[in-house]
Amino acid sequence: MLFERVESEGLAHYSYIVGDGNEAVVIDPRRDCEVYRRMAEREGMGIATILETHRNEDYIIGSLELAARTGAEVFHADGHLDYRYGDAVEDGMRWKVGRLEIEAISTPGHTLGSMSYLLRDARGDPWIVFTGDALFAGDLGRVDFMGMDRAEEMAGLLYESIFDRLLPLGDGVIACPAHGAGSACAASIADRKWTTLGIERKRNPKLQVGGVEEFVEKMAVELEMPPYFREMERLNLAGAPHLATLPDPATISPEEFEESAEDGLVLDTRTELAFGAAHVPGALNIWLAGVPSFAGWFLPYDRDILLVDETSDLSIATRRLRRIGYDRLAGHLAGGMVAWHMAGKKSDSIATATVPDLCARLDSEEKENAWILDVRGDDEVKRSGRITGAHQIHITKLPERIREVPRNRPVYIFCGSGLRSMVAASILRREGLEEMTVILGGLAAWSSAKCPVVK
Amino acid sequence: MLFERVESEGLAHYSYIVGDGNEAVVIDPRRDCEVYRRMAEREGMGIATILETHRNEDYIIGSLELAARTGAEVFHADGHLDYRYGDAVEDGMRWKVGRLEIEAISTPGHTLGSMSYLLRDARGDPWIVFTGDALFAGDLGRVDFMGMDRAEEMAGLLYESIFDRLLPLGDGVIACPAHGAGSACAASIADRKWTTLGIERKRNPKLQVGGVEEFVEKMAVELEMPPYFREMERLNLAGAPHLATLPDPATISPEEFEESAEDGLVLDTRTELAFGAAHVPGALNIWLAGVPSFAGWFLPYDRDILLVDETSDLSIATRRLRRIGYDRLAGHLAGGMVAWHMAGKKSDSIATATVPDLCARLDSEEKENAWILDVRGDDEVKRSGRITGAHQIHITKLPERIREVPRNRPVYIFCGSGLRSMVAASILRREGLEEMTVILGGLAAWSSAKCPVVK
Amino acid sequence: MLFERVESEGLAHYSYIVGDGNEAVVIDPRRDCEVYRRMAEREGMGIATILETHRNEDYIIGSLELAARTGAEVFHADGHLDYRYGDAVEDGMRWKVGRLEIEAISTPGHTLGSMSYLLRDARGDPWIVFTGDALFAGDLGRVDFMGMDRAEEMAGLLYESIFDRLLPLGDGVIACPAHGAGSACAASIADRKWTTLGIERKRNPKLQVGGVEEFVEKMAVELEMPPYFREMERLNLAGAPHLATLPDPATISPEEFEESAEDGLVLDTRTELAFGAAHVPGALNIWLAGVPSFAGWFLPYDRDILLVDETSDLSIATRRLRRIGYDRLAGHLAGGMVAWHMAGKKSDSIATATVPDLCARLDSEEKENAWILDVRGDDEVKRSGRITGAHQIHITKLPERIREVPRNRPVYIFCGSGLRSMVAASILRREGLEEMTVILGGLAAWSSAKCPVVK
Amino acid sequence: MLFERVESEGLAHYSYIVGDGNEAVVIDPRRDCEVYRRMAEREGMGIATILETHRNEDYIIGSLELAARTGAEVFHADGHLDYRYGDAVEDGMRWKVGRLEIEAISTPGHTLGSMSYLLRDARGDPWIVFTGDALFAGDLGRVDFMGMDRAEEMAGLLYESIFDRLLPLGDGVIACPAHGAGSACAASIADRKWTTLGIERKRNPKLQVGGVEEFVEKMAVELEMPPYFREMERLNLAGAPHLATLPDPATISPEEFEESAEDGLVLDTRTELAFGAAHVPGALNIWLAGVPSFAGWFLPYDRDILLVDETSDLSIATRRLRRIGYDRLAGHLAGGMVAWHMAGKKSDSIATATVPDLCARLDSEEKENAWILDVRGDDEVKRSGRITGAHQIHITKLPERIREVPRNRPVYIFCGSGLRSMVAASILRREGLEEMTVILGGLAAWSSAKCPVVK
Repeated sequence: MLFERVESEGLAHYSYIVGDGNEAVVIDPRRDCEVYRRMAEREGMGIATILETHRNEDYIIGSLELAARTGAEVFHADGHLDYRYGDAVEDGMRWKVGRLEIEAISTPGHTLGSMSYLLRDARGDPWIVFTGDALFAGDLGRVDFMGMDRAEEMAGLLYESIFDRLLPLGDGVIACPAHGAGSACAASIADRKWTTLGIERKRNPKLQVGGVEEFVEKMAVELEMPPYFREMERLNLAGAPHLATLPDPATISPEEFEESAEDGLVLDTRTELAFGAAHVPGALNIWLAGVPSFAGWFLPYDRDILLVDETSDLSIATRRLRRIGYDRLAGHLAGGMVAWHMAGKKSDSIATATVPDLCARLDSEEKENAWILDVRGDDEVKRSGRITGAHQIHITKLPERIREVPRNRPVYIFCGSGLRSMVAASILRREGLEEMTVILGGLAAWSSAKCPVVK
Repeated sequence: MLFERVESEGLAHYSYIVGDGNEAVVIDPRRDCEVYRRMAEREGMGIATILETHRNEDYIIGSLELAARTGAEVFHADGHLDYRYGDAVEDGMRWKVGRLEIEAISTPGHTLGSMSYLLRDARGDPWIVFTGDALFAGDLGRVDFMGMDRAEEMAGLLYESIFDRLLPLGDGVIACPAHGAGSACAASIADRKWTTLGIERKRNPKLQVGGVEEFVEKMAVELEMPPYFREMERLNLAGAPHLATLPDPATISPEEFEESAEDGLVLDTRTELAFGAAHVPGALNIWLAGVPSFAGWFLPYDRDILLVDETSDLSIATRRLRRIGYDRLAGHLAGGMVAWHMAGKKSDSIATATVPDLCARLDSEEKENAWILDVRGDDEVKRSGRITGAHQIHITKLPERIREVPRNRPVYIFCGSGLRSMVAASILRREGLEEMTVILGGLAAWSSAKCPVVK
Repeated sequence: MLFERVESEGLAHYSYIVGDGNEAVVIDPRRDCEVYRRMAEREGMGIATILETHRNEDYIIGSLELAARTGAEVFHADGHLDYRYGDAVEDGMRWKVGRLEIEAISTPGHTLGSMSYLLRDARGDPWIVFTGDALFAGDLGRVDFMGMDRAEEMAGLLYESIFDRLLPLGDGVIACPAHGAGSACAASIADRKWTTLGIERKRNPKLQVGGVEEFVEKMAVELEMPPYFREMERLNLAGAPHLATLPDPATISPEEFEESAEDGLVLDTRTELAFGAAHVPGALNIWLAGVPSFAGWFLPYDRDILLVDETSDLSIATRRLRRIGYDRLAGHLAGGMVAWHMAGKKSDSIATATVPDLCARLDSEEKENAWILDVRGDDEVKRSGRITGAHQIHITKLPERIREVPRNRPVYIFCGSGLRSMVAASILRREGLEEMTVILGGLAAWSSAKCPVVK
Repeated sequence: MLFERVESEGLAHYSYIVGDGNEAVVIDPRRDCEVYRRMAEREGMGIATILETHRNEDYIIGSLELAARTGAEVFHADGHLDYRYGDAVEDGMRWKVGRLEIEAISTPGHTLGSMSYLLRDARGDPWIVFTGDALFAGDLGRVDFMGMDRAEEMAGLLYESIFDRLLPLGDGVIACPAHGAGSACAASIADRKWTTLGIERKRNPKLQVGGVEEFVEKMAVELEMPPYFREMERLNLAGAPHLATLPDPATISPEEFEESAEDGLVLDTRTELAFGAAHVPGALNIWLAGVPSFAGWFLPYDRDILLVDETSDLSIATRRLRRIGYDRLAGHLAGGMVAWHMAGKKSDSIATATVPDLCARLDSEEKENAWILDVRGDDEVKRSGRITGAHQIHITKLPERIREVPRNRPVYIFCGSGLRSMVAASILRREGLEEMTVILGGLAAWSSAKCPVVK
């Protein structure tokens, strides 16, 4: 028997493969889908069926890619939408997988046609339920995707899905959601990689409600939505291009890189320190591990992307960008910033300071003038507190609220660690702001140094 | 947060690593323990603590090896035993792991001092319980290790451990046992890789009892015990040699191989077909995937082991043999059987036949004379039925019951697939039996061919 | 600086990558060309140029595939042919590669337009010459490809190429040919992985001649030509399909496999022992390492190929078959022969015997009747001698000379080791021959056993 | 047949494995010697013999380690020295390796007892000569190791070794030295990975001499000698500790790291940009790729080494440091500098500037005051020119000449690229210098910017 979770780090996307006998089923595959084939092949199984829990918004579903390679049949939830390929799932449909059986359970709320899939073991007992974006560890799927005017209606649907369809399966059933902590598909998924219906019933904060009204009130809130979601929705209906048809990212000499950068966007995936010290003028900084979470907020789909990194290996960045549809990855700078400088090219820099440095400065005359920018989200601010006088603009809102940041005063940027602050700084610099300093270690450093925090 | 299961295929041994912040804990590590260090390092964690659920019988525990490399503290369950290293666990002991907490719960029954470990999540809620060999998916740990005279007493202890200590933690708690399907530590662990207390409470056949009496009656049975268990028990008290002190298995020319084989034991890990066709005279056959399950039954600890395989890569066999303490692995035959034959060496062979072949023969005059040997276990025979007139000797009993097999009649050997039959045939041949035939596909083939089966 | 050889084992094909600064050049790339890109990327280089030494006959050139991924420019030798892509090389053309320089040297003879490429080091001194199929270690490229009527003319061209163009570059220049020992592109390439013009000038048997006449006489001989060469020539002009457009080989259950085998060809890549013991009826046997050398002789291009192997990993066989254009690889048998037998399917077998077994039989009454088939080539027979009375039919000629093998006598098959004998046996069996025995260890075993050999 | 070069990047150390039949020979193995065993095992060979070309000075020879794992016999050149293990080679000794043969040729000069090893092919013809540190591509081994008073004597010996023993083997013989470009064992090895006696005879600058006098004059010069050479010489006589006995480097939390740093040395292997932006106070910077070349100059053997890096993978740094005997590698900072800052720790920084930045400053008032430090070696200065007024102190001499660098003036540091400049800056900072700026891109940037250079 085969049962494995495949995690796409950064996106916090979970997909699953289940197999028995000679057949396997994949639930919500990702676009770089070689991994499922290898797992199945190793067990002597062919992938016969691909099940989607809903039309995904936050990554490119790999159903079309995987079906093309394996001949598997694709079943879409949200079957009311106009898919260009595959078939629609209906409530109660069943698939045999060797001795096992999978059954579709309609669980709308996150989307209109969301499906969960119950896996029964060889004796027919409920064992695992794949809940998609309906139920997460410690949270539920957001209900604001249809617009806030329909949010209460969707929350109502979700209430029924959870309380009437999922929880009755029994406390002992293992719940396998489509996302883990860090996903943009819910407000705050818990850092609990494996969970059960019982744990969620008792501990999931969204389920501790007196009834449907309280539930709807709790759920019907508007959350942030990265701009790339619309592109994902479009591609997941139409089918994304096959990966094999995309040209390989190139290794580009400083001269050509400089030229290409005129029309393209330079994405620098180095750490906040290296980027701050020197970068190609105009570059956007997102440290490599942050790419899955932040690229979709700040990268355009209609321009070539040119990478600056510190490695000779393009494969990680390529994979991560392609998972969210950035197919115009032209390549990376040959030899990195050392080669750039050796070729006599100019670079830009952004100042950094530690918390003790900052305190020293604030103690001096600068205090009046200093403008502290906090780019963390509300949740974090609530949890860890904030610095008196700091101006909070969540990093994802920075492009639209950039005018709030003053151009004639020294700006000190905080986040939790310093990493997002440098992303923010690179955005500000691209808009022409000059005087800014990223605080290394961010609010964690501030707290470690016992500086005062308001909660 | 880090939570991963590490599975040692074949042994069906599960160990676990849990980490948060800068620290990690490993539960029941295996001897080739590099894997835990790499997982921890990748997350920026050091391994601080090693917890054992009981003094293991079926593999070499990696605690000493891992502690030597990491400086971690080792905690033994079964603390009444005379360990040469580490400290004893007591009921209720707690370990902080970042925001998480682990608590020892005394769950005797499989052994006198078995421990389970409850992992609480960041909010202090019960999340996962590591049950060692107390509770498996679909089964419980055997209680006959202290001898059958104490089996009822041990079963009584186990009853309390399960019903008073584990199940009250709640249906939703995930249960992580030390073994999966195929282990020799219980009669019939279910093929359900992940499970919960709720699933086990409702579906585990051993838990569907009216009370302690019925439970004790069900549990207090004697099971097979591979002879190597005693060696494991001894080494897990005293500490096994460090892997780095063992010499590397060599690549041995046919001439030297023939010479070394005089004092050593030749273990041929090829498939039943290749072995049957030709093998080094006197070789024992255990196909590679069967090594973890069968080596401990048939291999001695006091002789050099000489491998014949079909690959240039010794690492898999080496790892699997060392996990159960076979440290005298001298090496393998350079160039395999092709080189052996090219060097002009003699080989032996064992006949094989398909079910249709066999039927043809049985239809002829041979019928009277033929002696059918079925080397499957009772469970399998009960499940899949048997051939009328077949003589059942479980393969593990073959060495001691070998005289029951006639030397003057054609012996036809059945198992489930043909693989164990060739192991059995190699044992018989080593004892001088000449006329025997392995039935390819075994009872599965017999059933597929619609030949009559008695249930 | 980058200089590496990439060897395609089995085909004994050598390709090369040379780079300096930001640019790299690949000479005679293979079809699975990811390896060159990774090497270049690691050094911060882009592949700008692809050079072919001649229109290859024995494998699919990767120029088109690699150019599609990198944008490199392709230069063909044999520019008189009608290529569908790329440009023609001319004698004396030069390419700058950082501080290095490559120069085309016309060296016809093996083909009409064969080119060598001289690599000069950073100071402009001759360093390495890529000789394609003109000059090998210990041999020269065959001159019979244009037909035997033009062989003398071609040999004359080759004489000039070697003596007037290559050798004058100097004894110290390193010669890098397109093939190593084992290739079908020359009679007997030496097992000397690296060589120099000096070594070849002094030791290459084909160059130890008094003048052009002696040379032409030595060279103008007809060699065997695998039937797949014509397909390679065709594809290397027209451009082979992109690998990414090919469907992935599948994992096929015994039932489907049996069905597909009716129209397809079953290729069993297991060893001679396992195949002999049992195989899918009608299967052709070529052991995995023999696939690159023998598939092109015996496999058709117009039928699906169905693999039987002993591994869950299809990638090696897939890669090897695709290198020579076998793109219709449908998949492999799930679970191998064990699953086949368990499903109740019939299998066929071919007898094997060791040399001592054979001798025992030949000493008995069978001697008169026995017919010994030796499937080795002339070279080997000359080198190692032969068995009195054996009938030599080179394995490559077996399909066309199959009627010479008697159907009513016991046939004993010899090669060097037993591996090719089983290939031959599988061919004979497919043609309906029943009584045959493969001699394990082949002539090497015969000689090791001190049986009489005639030289 | 097996013939492979194993390159230890950074050290530019070349070792070789040669095998035929069932036996292999390794020449000058490195300490992490698993690679040779795997190569031999893959070919079905055992390593029977280990040959050293001389008592190495620049890395830990792996003979003892490899012998312990394989049982191979070790042969030392420089047999007059007092080795604690192995046997001495003598001129003319021969070893059979399958069909091949190796012969020892005495080639003193670099050391008193240096040996070369001639490999003859299957026909007995000279094929490859392993020249150790006697003959390199484009250079010869230095002769100053016995002290300058014996340098002329050693040069005389080397003359005979080259002209009387090696070159007469013939232009076509392939020369395989123990080092490539970048090694500290010769002044300037050419960037020509493969070479021949013919190429060296004609092009090696050291061999273009009128006679022995001119040769001796050219060779008898003093070169730099890294301090770690003495430790290598000592360990290569006595035998280094087995790798398996060393504790594993740990993952260390910021708190513990800070504590351990008091007695240990912090080595930061990040790039010049990241290190410059922020580093643990007191850290020495050597970028990862520079570790093999520079660690031996600046790292002590008697203190714990604590790494700061940007990766979760310690294995590369560990391997590189152990190759030169740095066995006291305590571990690395968990979470890198981000974690350091988040923990509220202080960091230090070093200013960087691009060439245009610098020019702008030099144009201003600072010009008079600025002190330009050029840490390149004489060779590079000669080749690429220098900046007027710059003070040249080769980086390797910096510790002893540190007082020449003024403390009260702005110091601008140049090397070829900026990487070594940051190493130098970290050394200066450790000695208390405050005002210094590393010029990014170094002299290459200066030249690219067309700034004036004096040659």
